[in-house]
Amino acid sequence: MSERIRSSILVVSLAVFVTSCAAVPSQPPDPLASWNNTGPKKAIIAFVERVTTPGSPDFVPAAERVATFDNDGTLWAEQPMYFQLQFALDRVQALAPLHPEWKDTEPFKHVVAGDMDAFLAGGEKALMTAVAVAHSGVTTEEFEKVAKDWIATARHPRTGRPYTQMVFQPMLELLAYLRAHEFKTYIVSGGGVEFMRAFAQQAYGIPPEQVIGSQGVLKFEMLDGKPVLVKMPEVQFVDDREGKARAIQALIGRRPLAAFGNSDGDLEMLQWTAAGPGARLVLLVHHTDAEREWAYDRESHIGKLDKAWDEASAKGWTIVSMKDDWTSIFPK
Amino acid sequence: MSERIRSSILVVSLAVFVTSCAAVPSQPPDPLASWNNTGPKKAIIAFVERVTTPGSPDFVPAAERVATFDNDGTLWAEQPMYFQLQFALDRVQALAPLHPEWKDTEPFKHVVAGDMDAFLAGGEKALMTAVAVAHSGVTTEEFEKVAKDWIATARHPRTGRPYTQMVFQPMLELLAYLRAHEFKTYIVSGGGVEFMRAFAQQAYGIPPEQVIGSQGVLKFEMLDGKPVLVKMPEVQFVDDREGKARAIQALIGRRPLAAFGNSDGDLEMLQWTAAGPGARLVLLVHHTDAEREWAYDRESHIGKLDKAWDEASAKGWTIVSMKDDWTSIFPK
Repeated sequence: MSERIRSSILVVSLAVFVTSCAAVPSQPPDPLASWNNTGPKKAIIAFVERVTTPGSPDFVPAAERVATFDNDGTLWAEQPMYFQLQFALDRVQALAPLHPEWKDTEPFKHVVAGDMDAFLAGGEKALMTAVAVAHSGVTTEEFEKVAKDWIATARHPRTGRPYTQMVFQPMLELLAYLRAHEFKTYIVSGGGVEFMRAFAQQAYGIPPEQVIGSQGVLKFEMLDGKPVLVKMPEVQFVDDREGKARAIQALIGRRPLAAFGNSDGDLEMLQWTAAGPGARLVLLVHHTDAEREWAYDRESHIGKLDKAWDEASAKGWTIVSMKDDWTSIFPK
Repeated sequence: MSERIRSSILVVSLAVFVTSCAAVPSQPPDPLASWNNTGPKKAIIAFVERVTTPGSPDFVPAAERVATFDNDGTLWAEQPMYFQLQFALDRVQALAPLHPEWKDTEPFKHVVAGDMDAFLAGGEKALMTAVAVAHSGVTTEEFEKVAKDWIATARHPRTGRPYTQMVFQPMLELLAYLRAHEFKTYIVSGGGVEFMRAFAQQAYGIPPEQVIGSQGVLKFEMLDGKPVLVKMPEVQFVDDREGKARAIQALIGRRPLAAFGNSDGDLEMLQWTAAGPGARLVLLVHHTDAEREWAYDRESHIGKLDKAWDEASAKGWTIVSMKDDWTSIFPK
C-alpha cells in the first residue's frame, strides 16, 4: 500500500469516526423548546439544577418539591372573559327552558336575550348570581358530567379552538420539565375546583387531588338510600389573593419551591413562596403579545397585573414577556 | 450397584430435593403479621387482590387507589381523652405564666389549678375555649414547632409511652400493605390538620399533603416585610361526620376505594366510600379489648360507636374486634 493510499484511508476513517461521534450521542430534544433562550428559560433551568442536584447546597428531597400554578392567564388564556364565566353563561342558557321566569328576572333575562352589555352592567352581583346558578343545584357527579361535556364541545369565540387548546404550550413544557425532575405540580387558582378538575388531567396532566380552587358549599344528602353531595350556591372558600397562601398551607402543608402566576391575585402566593429559605423560583407571565394572544396588565379588568408587577421588578422575580420569551403560545 | 443401594440413594436424593424445595422459596414475612387470620384480615387481602390484579373485573389503576383513615381511635388510641385535647391543656398550662388573668377566668383557672372535673363541667364551651387558645395566636411555623416539641416529650398518662407509640401496630401494617399495593393513604380526621401533620409522617409515613383535618382560620400578614400565616381562634372547617365526605370531595376529588373508622363521626365517610361502584373496603375498628387497650362503644362520650355499628352490621361492612382480630395492639 502506498503512503498516499494509507494516508487517505486514515483520513477517511477519522472522518467517519468523527462523524459517528457527533451523530451517535444525538442532541436530546429540548424539554423547553417553546421558550426562547432568554432570561426566564435560563432562570428556570438554573433553579431546577440547584434544587435537584445531589450535593448542591440548595438540594431539596423529591418529596418536598412542590410547584404551584395559577390557572387563568398562567396556564391557559383568560380573554375576552374568564372561560369559566363563559361556561356559566352557556349553562344559564341551557337551563333557561326549565326556568321560564328568567325571562323577566335580572340578570338572567339579559343572558337569555344574549345582551352581554346589559348583563355586564349588573356588575359583580350579576356575575356572582349567574355563576352560583350555573354551579349549584346538582350533585358533584352530575356537575362533573356537565363540565366535561362543555369542555368537550365549547369553542373559544375568537380562535374557534376547544378551550383545552387555549393552554400555553411553553407552560405545558414547564409542567412536564418540573415533573421530570420529581416536582409535584399543583394548580392553585381562583377557578372552581370541580370545574378545573374537569380538564386538568387531560390538559395539564394534573390529577384531581392536586387541583386547589375556590369551593362552593357541598351538602351531604341521602337520595334513595345513596349518599350524594349536592353543590349549593353558597361560597365555602375563595382561592384568590391571600386565600391562595392560606389554601397552600391548609391543603398542601408545604411551602412551594416554585410558584407561577400572572396577576395581582397571585401576589400573596408568590410572596409566600419567595419568603421560604433556600432557592425559590417565582415567576410572572406578562401578557405582552397582542398579535398571538392578548396584551394587558395594569389597566385590565381581567388578570390585572399592577402591584405584583411592581413587586416582581423590585424583588428580581422572573417576568416572562410572552412576546419576547415564548417562540409559540398555543399548541400546534 | 445393588437394587437396594440404588433405591436408598433415590430415597435420600428425593428427601434432599423435597427438603430443598420447602426451604429455598422461604415464606415471605406476613405483611399483616399482627392480624389474626380471621375475617377482617381475609377481607382486606381479598379486597386488595380484587382491585390490584390486572385483568380482574374490579381492577383499579394505581392513580385512583385512595384509602382514607380516621385518626383518633382508628390509627392511634383516644382514651382517656383525645390526645389533642391533652395537648391543648398542656399548652394552656405552658402559656399560663403569660396570662396571670387566667387564675380568675373560666375555664382556664381550672386547667391552671389542675382541676379536671371542674374544667369538664364546663362542657363543650370550656373545651372549645381551651382548644382555640392552644391553637391560635402563633404563626403556622411557630405552631409546628410547639406541636412537634409536645409530641416528642409528652407521655400518655396510663402507659407512660410517647403518643407516637400509642398507634396501633396492625394499622401501621395495613397502611404499609396498602402503600405496597400503590394506594395513596390519607388521614381524614376531626383532629386539627396542623396538629396531625406534626407526627403523621414520622408515625404513619403519611406526608403533610395527605393529611386532611379540621382547620382554624389562617390570617395572611406581613411581619417585618415577610409574609406569615397567623393561626386565628375561629374555625374554618370541621372535618367530622358529613364534613369528612365533603372534604374528601373538595380536597381529593376521588371517592376512596377503602375507608377506615371507629366511630359515628366516620359514618358519612364510610357511606360515601361504600356507595362507589366496584369493590370497596369499608372497615370499623371496634374497641373491645379492656385489657390491652380500652373497651367502649355505644355509651362512650369519646369515640361513640352506635349508628355506624348498626349500619356496618346491616350492610356487611368489615368490623374489627381489637380483642379477637389483632395479635398485638401497640408497637413492641
